[in-house]
Amino acid sequence: MARKVAPRRADYGWFRPITTRWVDNDVYGHVNNAHYYSYFDTVINQYLIEHGGLDIRSSPVVGFVVSSSCDFFSPVAYPGGLEVGLRVDGTGTSSVHYGVALFASADDTARAAGSVVHVFVERGTSTPVQIPEPIRRALEAIAGGARHLPESDAH
Amino acid sequence: MARKVAPRRADYGWFRPITTRWVDNDVYGHVNNAHYYSYFDTVINQYLIEHGGLDIRSSPVVGFVVSSSCDFFSPVAYPGGLEVGLRVDGTGTSSVHYGVALFASADDTARAAGSVVHVFVERGTSTPVQIPEPIRRALEAIAGGARHLPESDAH
Amino acid sequence: MARKVAPRRADYGWFRPITTRWVDNDVYGHVNNAHYYSYFDTVINQYLIEHGGLDIRSSPVVGFVVSSSCDFFSPVAYPGGLEVGLRVDGTGTSSVHYGVALFASADDTARAAGSVVHVFVERGTSTPVQIPEPIRRALEAIAGGARHLPESDAH
Amino acid sequence: MARKVAPRRADYGWFRPITTRWVDNDVYGHVNNAHYYSYFDTVINQYLIEHGGLDIRSSPVVGFVVSSSCDFFSPVAYPGGLEVGLRVDGTGTSSVHYGVALFASADDTARAAGSVVHVFVERGTSTPVQIPEPIRRALEAIAGGARHLPESDAH
Repeated sequence: MARKVAPRRADYGWFRPITTRWVDNDVYGHVNNAHYYSYFDTVINQYLIEHGGLDIRSSPVVGFVVSSSCDFFSPVAYPGGLEVGLRVDGTGTSSVHYGVALFASADDTARAAGSVVHVFVERGTSTPVQIPEPIRRALEAIAGGARHLPESDAH
Repeated sequence: MARKVAPRRADYGWFRPITTRWVDNDVYGHVNNAHYYSYFDTVINQYLIEHGGLDIRSSPVVGFVVSSSCDFFSPVAYPGGLEVGLRVDGTGTSSVHYGVALFASADDTARAAGSVVHVFVERGTSTPVQIPEPIRRALEAIAGGARHLPESDAH
Repeated sequence: MARKVAPRRADYGWFRPITTRWVDNDVYGHVNNAHYYSYFDTVINQYLIEHGGLDIRSSPVVGFVVSSSCDFFSPVAYPGGLEVGLRVDGTGTSSVHYGVALFASADDTARAAGSVVHVFVERGTSTPVQIPEPIRRALEAIAGGARHLPESDAH
Repeated sequence: MARKVAPRRADYGWFRPITTRWVDNDVYGHVNNAHYYSYFDTVINQYLIEHGGLDIRSSPVVGFVVSSSCDFFSPVAYPGGLEVGLRVDGTGTSSVHYGVALFASADDTARAAGSVVHVFVERGTSTPVQIPEPIRRALEAIAGGARHLPESDAH
């Protein structure tokens, strides 16, 4: 297989820190791969909450993960600090493809990079529905990386 | 995107049960997607331990996950019982591609299906090495699904 | 401090298996202590679901953990099989004190033993309420250990 | 039972932030109780690493949790920010009693407070040994709360 190239910070449009936990390290001394997906979930939903008006307890429309993938380039470990970078690689009527990457706090090159696909569904019935307008606008703001960052994120 | 077809039990060669946990369910009432990868890890390593002689605390050669992916077809939830099906889709000098799927205990069709790639490395240096012979033999036994099941697994 | 004595299986009235996971082991090679509490939660709620009619997604009254504690006598590790033993040590108007213990599958003596206190609350308001009658009856059935086991649990 | 009183920030001597994760919330919409213990572990070990010279991968002497407990006063939830406060309530030849509490980032009063007991053991044999001198000095610096804070922690 051709080894993929690790992306860099400039390839992503929105970043949030993740504090590692003692329990994240597995017996080999590194953060276990399953936790990476938990980090991605955390930052994707944080973006939807802060910029798209998602209320994870009461919104009638919520995003379900229908597929995900990740390439792991080099390990990270507790107690190191991490950041997840997020961008939107594409949207359909009810789905969105996110690009995500994990960075050690001091690094420009990603330790891991992946993709996550959300389908927006009616909470009660799980029926796919159109992406709600406030969320669609938020997704467009980080389409393809850093180009259209919301002003409130100048930190 | 073309929706993938959920595989069936006959597509996998080795199965192990997973008991769900209260904490697996997220706020939407289903097992969170990141836990699926933890289930896959659990069963892959269990196979290497039981059939390949892997000792996760002392073996000089261990398997590191370098990539993984999963399609989620329909949700599962605590307190339901689950099983993971495992097969080997290919091996290289130091790497192995596993096919994995998650089944509700009573189902023939998978709720989720994915792939995991291990590279075997020297524990101390993380340098890729040849797959150890006992592990290679164990991997060949479940190549492509159910064809060459070890006799000891007739349960 | 006086070291507590590890309890035995006869001290508990209801048991359920827990399959360990790769990710449960921490860097010291044992199941991390926080996971024990997750095992306890799992089995307590399983009992309320199976015997007290709790529906974790829709019941108007649910149990919130208000305190917990655990003594860890000797470690357990993936891939070993585990069982949690459960009993009820006391009930008030809205609260119940559970006794819980973790056993390696082949052992009679517990590896860890603890307590968990639930207060039953209205789901929407978190206001404490009387323990619902079906749950109270289920709790009485395992008061003080094995004395009054529901017949359906003769497995 | 007499309800315990929630402690305040002034009762603790060392603080570290914890970023909540999507997966921390359980089906009732709050951080699950088991995660609190994982937060405590994280901050205790972080203190030992930063101030006591603990190397979790190679130190010959490591701390094993032998007991823990927690009172949960009011819930916290993703995506809120948290901090753990740490103090030392007592030390023996080989053991240390930590006091720990969880605060929402903006709060002075704890949402939960607990205790954790470490016994220091030889990594290979799990035999209790004297607390290593650099760790003992670090523990004394936060004995009983905020009195003797290391200067490097003036943030």
